[in-house]
Amino acid sequence: MRNLTLLTDLYQLTMMEGYLQCGTHQKTAVFDLFFRPKGEINYAVFAGLQQAAEYIEDLHFDGEDLDYLKSLNCFSQAFLDKLKDFRFTGEIYSVREGEMVFPYEPIVVVRAPLFEAQLVETALLNILNHQTLIATKAARVTSVAGDNVMEFGLRRAQGPDAGIYGARAAMIGGCNGTSNVLAAKMFGIPPKGTHAHSFVMSFDSELEAFRAYAESYPDNCLLLVDTYDTLRSGVPNAIKVFDELRKKGHEPVGIRLDSGDLAYLSKKARKMLDEAGYPKAVICASGDLDEVSIASLKSQGACIDSWGVGTKLITSESVPSLGGVYKMAEIEDGGVMRPVIKISENPAKITNPGFKKIWRIYGKEGMAEADLICLADENIDTSRPLTIFHPQETWKKTTFTDYTVRPLLDKVFEDGKLVRPLPPLSEAMAFARAERATFWDEYKRLEKPHIFKVDLSQKLFDLKNSLLEERHATK
Amino acid sequence: MRNLTLLTDLYQLTMMEGYLQCGTHQKTAVFDLFFRPKGEINYAVFAGLQQAAEYIEDLHFDGEDLDYLKSLNCFSQAFLDKLKDFRFTGEIYSVREGEMVFPYEPIVVVRAPLFEAQLVETALLNILNHQTLIATKAARVTSVAGDNVMEFGLRRAQGPDAGIYGARAAMIGGCNGTSNVLAAKMFGIPPKGTHAHSFVMSFDSELEAFRAYAESYPDNCLLLVDTYDTLRSGVPNAIKVFDELRKKGHEPVGIRLDSGDLAYLSKKARKMLDEAGYPKAVICASGDLDEVSIASLKSQGACIDSWGVGTKLITSESVPSLGGVYKMAEIEDGGVMRPVIKISENPAKITNPGFKKIWRIYGKEGMAEADLICLADENIDTSRPLTIFHPQETWKKTTFTDYTVRPLLDKVFEDGKLVRPLPPLSEAMAFARAERATFWDEYKRLEKPHIFKVDLSQKLFDLKNSLLEERHATK
Repeated sequence: MRNLTLLTDLYQLTMMEGYLQCGTHQKTAVFDLFFRPKGEINYAVFAGLQQAAEYIEDLHFDGEDLDYLKSLNCFSQAFLDKLKDFRFTGEIYSVREGEMVFPYEPIVVVRAPLFEAQLVETALLNILNHQTLIATKAARVTSVAGDNVMEFGLRRAQGPDAGIYGARAAMIGGCNGTSNVLAAKMFGIPPKGTHAHSFVMSFDSELEAFRAYAESYPDNCLLLVDTYDTLRSGVPNAIKVFDELRKKGHEPVGIRLDSGDLAYLSKKARKMLDEAGYPKAVICASGDLDEVSIASLKSQGACIDSWGVGTKLITSESVPSLGGVYKMAEIEDGGVMRPVIKISENPAKITNPGFKKIWRIYGKEGMAEADLICLADENIDTSRPLTIFHPQETWKKTTFTDYTVRPLLDKVFEDGKLVRPLPPLSEAMAFARAERATFWDEYKRLEKPHIFKVDLSQKLFDLKNSLLEERHATK
Repeated sequence: MRNLTLLTDLYQLTMMEGYLQCGTHQKTAVFDLFFRPKGEINYAVFAGLQQAAEYIEDLHFDGEDLDYLKSLNCFSQAFLDKLKDFRFTGEIYSVREGEMVFPYEPIVVVRAPLFEAQLVETALLNILNHQTLIATKAARVTSVAGDNVMEFGLRRAQGPDAGIYGARAAMIGGCNGTSNVLAAKMFGIPPKGTHAHSFVMSFDSELEAFRAYAESYPDNCLLLVDTYDTLRSGVPNAIKVFDELRKKGHEPVGIRLDSGDLAYLSKKARKMLDEAGYPKAVICASGDLDEVSIASLKSQGACIDSWGVGTKLITSESVPSLGGVYKMAEIEDGGVMRPVIKISENPAKITNPGFKKIWRIYGKEGMAEADLICLADENIDTSRPLTIFHPQETWKKTTFTDYTVRPLLDKVFEDGKLVRPLPPLSEAMAFARAERATFWDEYKRLEKPHIFKVDLSQKLFDLKNSLLEERHATK
């Protein structure tokens, strides 16, 4: 395992030195990790907690790290000594991997000595922003394509980790396999793939290449048919080889189209395969696909059974970063916790103060209706009606009578240790699937989706306003 | 070091099994790595060769890898045995890190047994696509901002590697430092940074926070002034602390603006600092910057001395992947090398056959004028005029009389070993800077740049056309 302790911004270390020098380093602080809306992203599928937890558990500065920091000549010896036996001792609360989450709600809450809570900001954001981004993109793709999407993007991913953890996140978002062998091995994902153009080009003819491939994989024969000419050469040659295979008692799997007009080619190829006696041969498509092009192909009646989605999924091309941030919500002050707020001229950038939790509210059909961000000591009595209101347009109110609630944040770290092992990927995938099913399609559609309500409790709303007034008064 | 040998697509392995079974695995093959134009990217700054070379040198399947592949039940024992003593034995030619490169020209050429050349496709593309992408984005940003750009994007990078190697690539693209401490340590990059909003929020007041920071860093005091109100609170408090610092004999560094109207705020803040006696205090800006917003701020006369560029640089947000591909160009056939071509209905997707090299042509001012892709045995006699022509619009010709040429591809691997150590990052950075200076600004401007000529030699052009004719004839 790589030591990622220095995977942080320099200013976290300079701030830690500052805290140590003025003796505030041991103050308990609460930080919220949440994301702001960006581009098309109106919901997200949370992912990356496993890797974030591994990072937290492994935190330590080794001798080489300390030597390096000393060589920068900007830290005191007292500070470097303090780092020597650094470990994370705090609490972390988090939603589960696969949870549907929304802008502004705290999805991870760190409650720890300021010295520690400050260090972990950058790596937590890096890991969780990335995996949540890719899981979200995969959820968008699979919301259109269904559960027959393979992740094919390693070659265009932003470095090895982006390919490896991106493949993992894509599974949480609903993909059913990856071309990435290392990710498959690390996380027990089904590896997928057949052959490339170069295989065909390495033989004197396409037919020879197909025969060789069929010989090697008689029971898993899926042929790429677009190296030279899909309909005049590729599909006819594939059918020839399928006939030979069948004579030997094997049933072919199908073909893959990787270029050209996939709507037209897939319909023509389907007809050719059907007429040749291969109605069950699948047609797999790949080549610069995303949720928009897949939706378009489907609306055109393309005959495509499975989808290999690469570049645009693994980089989340349309929105290549999640707007995740990590903001202080509360700080110890003279032995008591003081809620704090970050002000901005832009109301959307004003933070929510205090140590908080989230209740998800479900209607009588068991479908999610709203999230309510509360202070940590607030509970909901579901035997009584619950009225919530929009945090800016406060006259917009909703009252629930027949409803249930579920808390979204679990304590995952206590005294710096994992409270219990995190669920394996397979469980996160199943949870993600079940969770997404509790949201009406209207929230998940690509065009002008309905915006899910994320409101503040009266108590949190009042606290926020009192801090804003107080800040104004002291100017 | 992590073992990245399985960082490949499954189909590379299934193809290798196919080659082994039909006895073609030892055939020598030549693959070209090149990129296709995409979005705004009309030139690229090549980066990542160091990590690509480390990957090649370390290639080996360990016991765990082999056990995993065996468990998939799709490979023969003969194949797995073959992998046991796999190592790369071929040649690799490459342009240097920092080189300016253009669409369609081979920037890396792998000449190796088919079995080996096939395996390395995915990881080479992953590593080189990523770093070249980020170096290119950084070059675009620094072409506008100048050499005072810091890379600040770790928290939004697509995973740890994207942050680490992205910071490295950003340096090749012209940045002067990074906030990423791990990348700084790994590659000897100057780490940069000051403090965040949370530092201010952890104190009872902004003034107290600034005083504490100044106390810790009296000679490196750069204060973030936008936590509450930039002009009414942040800058006046900073000036107060600067006065106190100066009384103690220290000169402050300056302030950082991270939100709001950076043009307006920087002009006002400049005036306030100047009037308070701090004309040398720098103003650093950050917050969702890229080459477009920096150009706009500059044109508005913003008083900004240095730039912290994060999300949009580290993800190359406007074009988050490079269209790099790896295509077979030549394959051994009965003991001789046979050039091969990949056909497509789209002329831009037809590959250039054969084992090739590139000559860069310089005019008499020493400025780059064109690249000429040739077959590997072609040389240029610069004592004679040289006429080149556009590869599609062949009537467009240019003749050079007073010119020099430079070959772009060096042999970096021979018999599977590095020919010589690759230059350190500092050298690649200096080379990149010098190289970019040999290109007229017209090629590098953001809006409607002039397109640099990348032509084919007559011999390569004729070979390509003969293969296209031949392919048509055999249909």
